[in-house]
Amino acid sequence: MKGWGVVLLVFTFCLPPVFFIAGCQEPPKTEAVRPVKIASGDVDPAHWGKAYPIEYERWKKTKEPDPAGSKYKRTFGPDRVIYDRLSEYPFSALLYNGWGFGVEYNEPRGHFYMIRDQLSVDPSRLKAGGVCLTCKTPYAPQFEKEMGHDYYSRPYKEIWENIPEKYRKLGVSCIDCHDNNDMTLRLSRGFTLVKALKDMGVQPEDLTHQQMRSMVCAQCHVTYVVTKDKDMKSTGVFFPWQGSKLGGITIENIIKKLRSDPSYLEWKQAVTGFKLAYIRHPEFELFSNNSVHWNAGVSCPDCHMPYVKVGTYKVSDHRVMSPLKNGLKACVQCHAESPDWLRRQVFNIQDRTASLLLRAGYETAVVAKLFETANNAQAAGKAVDKVMYDKAKDFYEEAFYRVVFIGAENSVGFHNPPEALRVLGDAVAFASRSEAILRNALARAGVDVPQNVDLDLNKYLDKRGEKKLKFIPAQEIKDPFGTQARFE
Amino acid sequence: MKGWGVVLLVFTFCLPPVFFIAGCQEPPKTEAVRPVKIASGDVDPAHWGKAYPIEYERWKKTKEPDPAGSKYKRTFGPDRVIYDRLSEYPFSALLYNGWGFGVEYNEPRGHFYMIRDQLSVDPSRLKAGGVCLTCKTPYAPQFEKEMGHDYYSRPYKEIWENIPEKYRKLGVSCIDCHDNNDMTLRLSRGFTLVKALKDMGVQPEDLTHQQMRSMVCAQCHVTYVVTKDKDMKSTGVFFPWQGSKLGGITIENIIKKLRSDPSYLEWKQAVTGFKLAYIRHPEFELFSNNSVHWNAGVSCPDCHMPYVKVGTYKVSDHRVMSPLKNGLKACVQCHAESPDWLRRQVFNIQDRTASLLLRAGYETAVVAKLFETANNAQAAGKAVDKVMYDKAKDFYEEAFYRVVFIGAENSVGFHNPPEALRVLGDAVAFASRSEAILRNALARAGVDVPQNVDLDLNKYLDKRGEKKLKFIPAQEIKDPFGTQARFE
Repeated sequence: MKGWGVVLLVFTFCLPPVFFIAGCQEPPKTEAVRPVKIASGDVDPAHWGKAYPIEYERWKKTKEPDPAGSKYKRTFGPDRVIYDRLSEYPFSALLYNGWGFGVEYNEPRGHFYMIRDQLSVDPSRLKAGGVCLTCKTPYAPQFEKEMGHDYYSRPYKEIWENIPEKYRKLGVSCIDCHDNNDMTLRLSRGFTLVKALKDMGVQPEDLTHQQMRSMVCAQCHVTYVVTKDKDMKSTGVFFPWQGSKLGGITIENIIKKLRSDPSYLEWKQAVTGFKLAYIRHPEFELFSNNSVHWNAGVSCPDCHMPYVKVGTYKVSDHRVMSPLKNGLKACVQCHAESPDWLRRQVFNIQDRTASLLLRAGYETAVVAKLFETANNAQAAGKAVDKVMYDKAKDFYEEAFYRVVFIGAENSVGFHNPPEALRVLGDAVAFASRSEAILRNALARAGVDVPQNVDLDLNKYLDKRGEKKLKFIPAQEIKDPFGTQARFE
Repeated sequence: MKGWGVVLLVFTFCLPPVFFIAGCQEPPKTEAVRPVKIASGDVDPAHWGKAYPIEYERWKKTKEPDPAGSKYKRTFGPDRVIYDRLSEYPFSALLYNGWGFGVEYNEPRGHFYMIRDQLSVDPSRLKAGGVCLTCKTPYAPQFEKEMGHDYYSRPYKEIWENIPEKYRKLGVSCIDCHDNNDMTLRLSRGFTLVKALKDMGVQPEDLTHQQMRSMVCAQCHVTYVVTKDKDMKSTGVFFPWQGSKLGGITIENIIKKLRSDPSYLEWKQAVTGFKLAYIRHPEFELFSNNSVHWNAGVSCPDCHMPYVKVGTYKVSDHRVMSPLKNGLKACVQCHAESPDWLRRQVFNIQDRTASLLLRAGYETAVVAKLFETANNAQAAGKAVDKVMYDKAKDFYEEAFYRVVFIGAENSVGFHNPPEALRVLGDAVAFASRSEAILRNALARAGVDVPQNVDLDLNKYLDKRGEKKLKFIPAQEIKDPFGTQARFE
């Protein structure tokens, strides 16, 4: 019997595949068996949750306030207080004055609230139109495809009403990152991320699974440009990654791109009168630019969605949050140190970043005020040297974008400590060169400027927007090194 | 038999110790057996080497050029070229002009050369007198004790000649760090390090072995002040750590101390005419200030003297060098990554630090030149506002000390990346505030200052000292991020 078995086995293995096709039925494919079939295009997480109840239940928990985390990211903690970014960093109220970000700019809550927060924020934040929904609803790709130009330019509320009523408050959903058949990671934002990757010569189909784990997050945790026509109507949205490479999307290249075309300038800064571009939450850009964790092959979910065990199941935690908020569980998977020890190192980095952000921010705000002085002087008939003015403006913008870059990034430097600090150092250097030139130009024009420029911050901090928002002194972030934020 | 054995064992263990003392001879002490006995006070490594030949042979190898290491620390590499720090960072030739550091300032070679380098450097570097021997000869503690004030103030060569002829070129030796009886680590520099530790409330006898492994290095790899009398004769030497704590010797506290007493001002900066203090190789200060490696309990020798195996012996490598030079052997003891990968992360940090050091250095040099302009204007009878001038000077000094701190520190930021970058960022911020105020003051005094200040660097870089040293363009460190070092 044994002899015959071996002969049969050898015989079977030697048969060419065509034998089966010709002689037998094709064997059934290996397929995961799930209690439900998720329909193509189904946005409803509750339906997906029938097949993946643990992920779904964790995802729903993004509704609940988080445990306390970083001292610089206090919103959505146990006390449920929403922190006002303009009160945290008062200089930013001056710098962002002129559009929505200068009116109401809150620290972010959990994913559950993404569209709810948008619906309750001051309407000035939604002026760009339907394009603001790009990262907020799973319907965005469909709308963009079907409506084309209208999707970008028509009023936010008008586009939003096209979402079926049941899903109008639904934020990021399973379908934004997963294939409905086998849960493979997918990029749902072809018109933003996929285009940007191709601009860098990256073909999405070549990305590894581990890279895809970061890419699904990079659909939204990036900066972007809402392009404008000459009437300041939105005409599109793109990521300013051209000229960079994956693993090295630099602030230098981003700024070069932002400044290369007037249609990228989205707003007018009130204090200077300059038309400027903007930078939003560039988590992916900072992290992926040669950071130590990126270079170690770490992906976003490795830290923000570490595995949780539920009974005998082990799934990546769809209650996305900062590792600081859940006992640094993600960190201790690789680092042998205690959570307390690791937390202290994170704070060492964040303290230093916050300190330099304050320096860079205030220095840039001072320059903005000097431009106001220069503009007033010109309006009053004084002659300010144009070459000097233009050079100062050039440096000012270089500083401004760097301050926004690190200020908007949500890790307070942790995603890439030396790069964050380098960028802020350069911001101070650019702002200071601008200030020097501008003071010279003003002096030559016979305009006396005081040693310490009054930033008049209350003017920008109080009575903001429809809600008449006010400065909340208790929320202000002070220099952790005990010095004044601004050297006076 | 078995039963009796147990009874006997119990009985023996229950006997009080006095029983042995009263009834027997005291047992012999455990003692290491060595082929030679090292005499107390013996400075000759060759004698110690008879007992510890492997350590001695490795120590002797500090005479040989190292393998290539960091691109920012190229001296003493395979090509044997000595790199000129003033050519590497041309701004420093301007800032240090006025005393020895502005004449000849070379990147360091191995420990073997410490006193040889001193004997061949431009004599302006030795003007402080015998005090310059404090870290260069094992005879220093004895001289300090015996000669008192003379040790500090008498000419360098005169004190040096008190060293027995055979040992006049002998640098750091076994006795500087070890007890001759049992090789215990010891602090030989009671008059500098031990005093400084006590000023911070640290009792040397409370230090752990692992702390002592850093402390022996901290006898010299620190900053120090050579105090002066009113004729600028040296009167002592101390570490400016007062007001700090072990694990947090901050640049803020160091500067506060340096500026607290005119006797700490060691030289006059030529370009500004200011009497200033100075900061030397503060490796220990930067590393121990809450850096991630310090917090992880790492000591200096863990990285710079990793264990080597010689036959069946395993000893800490007394050929002290950068981990970058010996295949990152020290790093891979804790880090699982490949040496190439680890090297890349070190360079990522050093690139960013070098870039910001250039910004900070040039910005500070610009301000120095503006003070020269202001001083000339005052000499020509123009009235420069004193309050503004003093405030600008205050900020300038804050910037200057920070630039020297990171510029003199020999890790190009690696010993504490976010702290190094924070300090440099603050340097730029202070310098820029100074520049702004000074430009204002000059404008009010009717002095026109150009947009881009000419630093006239050749004046400071060429024909330096007795050797008529010149700028070596090939050695200049360029901004690794491809921008100009100074924004113009």
